[in-house]
Amino acid sequence: MSKTFAGNFFEDFAIGQEIVHATPRTLTEGDLALYGGLYGSRFAMTSGETFAKGLGLERMPVDSLLVFHVVFGKSVPEISLNAVANLGYAGGVWGVPVYVGDTLTATSTVIGLKPNSNGTTGNVYVRTVGRNQHDETVLDYVRWVMVRRREPVSPDALGEATIPELPGAVPAEDLVAPWRVVGGYDTAVAGSEHLWDDYEVGERIDHVDGVTIEESDHMLATRLYQNTARVHFDQHAQARSTAGRRLIYGGHVISLARALSFNGLGNAQSVAALNGGTHANPTFAGDTIYAWTEVLERIELPGRKDVGALRVRTVAAKDHPCADFPLKGEDGRYLPFVVLDLDCTVLLPRR
Amino acid sequence: MSKTFAGNFFEDFAIGQEIVHATPRTLTEGDLALYGGLYGSRFAMTSGETFAKGLGLERMPVDSLLVFHVVFGKSVPEISLNAVANLGYAGGVWGVPVYVGDTLTATSTVIGLKPNSNGTTGNVYVRTVGRNQHDETVLDYVRWVMVRRREPVSPDALGEATIPELPGAVPAEDLVAPWRVVGGYDTAVAGSEHLWDDYEVGERIDHVDGVTIEESDHMLATRLYQNTARVHFDQHAQARSTAGRRLIYGGHVISLARALSFNGLGNAQSVAALNGGTHANPTFAGDTIYAWTEVLERIELPGRKDVGALRVRTVAAKDHPCADFPLKGEDGRYLPFVVLDLDCTVLLPRR
Amino acid sequence: MSKTFAGNFFEDFAIGQEIVHATPRTLTEGDLALYGGLYGSRFAMTSGETFAKGLGLERMPVDSLLVFHVVFGKSVPEISLNAVANLGYAGGVWGVPVYVGDTLTATSTVIGLKPNSNGTTGNVYVRTVGRNQHDETVLDYVRWVMVRRREPVSPDALGEATIPELPGAVPAEDLVAPWRVVGGYDTAVAGSEHLWDDYEVGERIDHVDGVTIEESDHMLATRLYQNTARVHFDQHAQARSTAGRRLIYGGHVISLARALSFNGLGNAQSVAALNGGTHANPTFAGDTIYAWTEVLERIELPGRKDVGALRVRTVAAKDHPCADFPLKGEDGRYLPFVVLDLDCTVLLPRR
Repeated sequence: MSKTFAGNFFEDFAIGQEIVHATPRTLTEGDLALYGGLYGSRFAMTSGETFAKGLGLERMPVDSLLVFHVVFGKSVPEISLNAVANLGYAGGVWGVPVYVGDTLTATSTVIGLKPNSNGTTGNVYVRTVGRNQHDETVLDYVRWVMVRRREPVSPDALGEATIPELPGAVPAEDLVAPWRVVGGYDTAVAGSEHLWDDYEVGERIDHVDGVTIEESDHMLATRLYQNTARVHFDQHAQARSTAGRRLIYGGHVISLARALSFNGLGNAQSVAALNGGTHANPTFAGDTIYAWTEVLERIELPGRKDVGALRVRTVAAKDHPCADFPLKGEDGRYLPFVVLDLDCTVLLPRR
Repeated sequence: MSKTFAGNFFEDFAIGQEIVHATPRTLTEGDLALYGGLYGSRFAMTSGETFAKGLGLERMPVDSLLVFHVVFGKSVPEISLNAVANLGYAGGVWGVPVYVGDTLTATSTVIGLKPNSNGTTGNVYVRTVGRNQHDETVLDYVRWVMVRRREPVSPDALGEATIPELPGAVPAEDLVAPWRVVGGYDTAVAGSEHLWDDYEVGERIDHVDGVTIEESDHMLATRLYQNTARVHFDQHAQARSTAGRRLIYGGHVISLARALSFNGLGNAQSVAALNGGTHANPTFAGDTIYAWTEVLERIELPGRKDVGALRVRTVAAKDHPCADFPLKGEDGRYLPFVVLDLDCTVLLPRR
Repeated sequence: MSKTFAGNFFEDFAIGQEIVHATPRTLTEGDLALYGGLYGSRFAMTSGETFAKGLGLERMPVDSLLVFHVVFGKSVPEISLNAVANLGYAGGVWGVPVYVGDTLTATSTVIGLKPNSNGTTGNVYVRTVGRNQHDETVLDYVRWVMVRRREPVSPDALGEATIPELPGAVPAEDLVAPWRVVGGYDTAVAGSEHLWDDYEVGERIDHVDGVTIEESDHMLATRLYQNTARVHFDQHAQARSTAGRRLIYGGHVISLARALSFNGLGNAQSVAALNGGTHANPTFAGDTIYAWTEVLERIELPGRKDVGALRVRTVAAKDHPCADFPLKGEDGRYLPFVVLDLDCTVLLPRR
């Protein structure tokens, strides 16, 4: 009877299952502009064609995070439509750069399943791969989500758990650095004089600025990514939820934090790896997002003297400026106003 | 004196009058992205260039409804700036596909005039034709609106009524199916396994999902279409109206319903005809839109075994999920929360 | 220590100082669409490729004001991040037209410095030049802003003032008219029958329509221009300010007024000069903007019989329709609901 797809429930997943996600998506110049308008990113390589060409790219590439959102969005209908929570990310690596005109598709493989003891939910671990029209990998990452069961089971009939070994931080040799510094790098035009060599492990940077999120913004963004999770869009239903409001797609906060990070990390031209990440608390319209970053590791890329990588923790907070670098309380839990704890690797030119 | 155009009133129209509408509009990649962000449409043919080419098109076409809105928008200044209500549509047929780079213009012909007995308004029937830069028809439809008179007249001086014979549902031989299934159709990538053959007349589909409209969304959309009707934009003036709020352009709801219909009609790659339609009740910011569809007719296209048409009724409701397929009450009137009753013909691949 | 840039303070500026602004910006088709959606502009030359080509341009050019916003936005981090007020504009001239694919950069020269007697602020005068990737000037204008001092000084240690001679209205010989009327001009398609010859000095035009601004709209626009002024985005901080709310970027109101001016000035295809301008009062989300225009001067362009210029004053008001042409009160001050008084020169075809 039903031609409507209600999403998969925990019972519908099996280890090794391969899922082809729907709707190939061609990235256009329009996506660049809308992404720009939504986040105000100022990194020179994804803003100016001339600057990108100066870094050896054929054209201005699509922002790493826009690629992430598009690939993520494709996986929502099959993976997380019935999710209670998006629990984490690991081992995310960006591959070949994406350009305007490229068409992205995505597939996922179920790599872990863990029934929860309440008998009503389980955790699903998937590895999702985004590819362009030449079948080249543009992004490969693991995420895990807590998904509802269609029917609750009693605690003695939970079934077996298969918890995958999660990748640690992406190692230097797996990072792809598609741009290079040839014939000079103009820090004035780039907007920051601080290069890879200038950052020290342990250094913390307050990104200072704050930006308030409106309902229209996050819905426009989330629809652009063809992400269909209902909690972001349906106020009539959300009014009956615990939150009482629409939840903002966590990726929207990631992109806001990345755009804010320009002030302090202006030469971090691209994101090369998503080592991990937690959406520590929900975000709602009206919240003002601030962010700070800690340098976790300074990574030399094999055979490269022109570009280096920084593994960084970027934390976003709501309605709380980040001069005090907020993270966790004495109980070891995230402070209630911390909304994002992201571990990623960014690329910067070297001196 | 006045260089300002205040729109036409009922007295300004004459049967047979031809109106050239202003502002040629070039469709760009930006329009595709913004349309995507506004509605989150996931139909594969208008999302992925590769998919569109697989259907024999030279490129990814512009969404049928975006073409409709642009053509409609052009006609607003001359036809409906002084409209009290948008009464109906009939005989709408999409012609050659529109691609990025095409420039659309529109003209209208007055085909009917009916003075209303109150002496203050009259109904104006126009046939509007949208054309591309090669003078090919991209859309041809009839609409009628209730327009204010500049000066009220007494009931005995209303003048004659000319009510045109309205076209019924667009017949199979007039439908244009510009894409074809050649060398297979990938239902996994398209996002639905249900093809034309799988739908039965009388079948009803609840599209499940809901999306809440914000003021920014509908104004961004309506300006994108260069639709200048004041009721959508001017809260200062609307505060003094009966509604007290900005009215949402009915076409915005049509596009939302179409995007929601992907869940259940995922292979309805394009809209070929607008047989009729009623904006049953007004929509305002804050409303959450749900939709359902009934299959009215299964139409074979002359000489085509690869693509078939479905005439469908798509109904949208506000703040009311559509599992109960709401439409009219016992009094035969639309339920107060039903906002759209659209009769259109969509194209799907056949088995 | 700090890798974060907090903007320049009054003490940081010196006469003759040259500032290279960050982030080259490639204009795309996406920018055209988003600009269209934000303002609903209907001027034919920037809407239809066919129309633009008919005016001798190689392609549809980017709207003059979008060029202004992008160039202006670049100058914000170094010039006005610590500004208290944007005081005025002068001598703005648009140069070569900007097309999709062009990459804009900007530099500023400090041409004036005036310490204010309060010892806490000073006025900074800069001349900002925007250039394309061929190093051609696309825009050249002067603005002055009141900027905070890092440290207050006592009234007897203010330092010297250098107040530049500000340019008056841009003279005819400095205006660039990059389009021409060749082989006819279709007023029906352009949307107005009033050409340059039809306007008289002193004539005033009420643009009639009103448009309400939402928080999402102005933030989307201001981010699109990569304008980083905090007052537009950070409600958490603004809640503690006198206004209590986010201030709307003055340029957003300029573009709204320009779009509204189509109704009465529909053939003013481009803006050639910004002679001066004042943001008379702040604008906030929820305000409805109306506008009116007075013709100040009718200018013949040297050697041109096809195109003429009108120097116009365009005034915008909030929550006050402009049929009464509001401007200043009996005290000579702007009326509290007047938000913009703009002196610019527009180009129209001649008879």
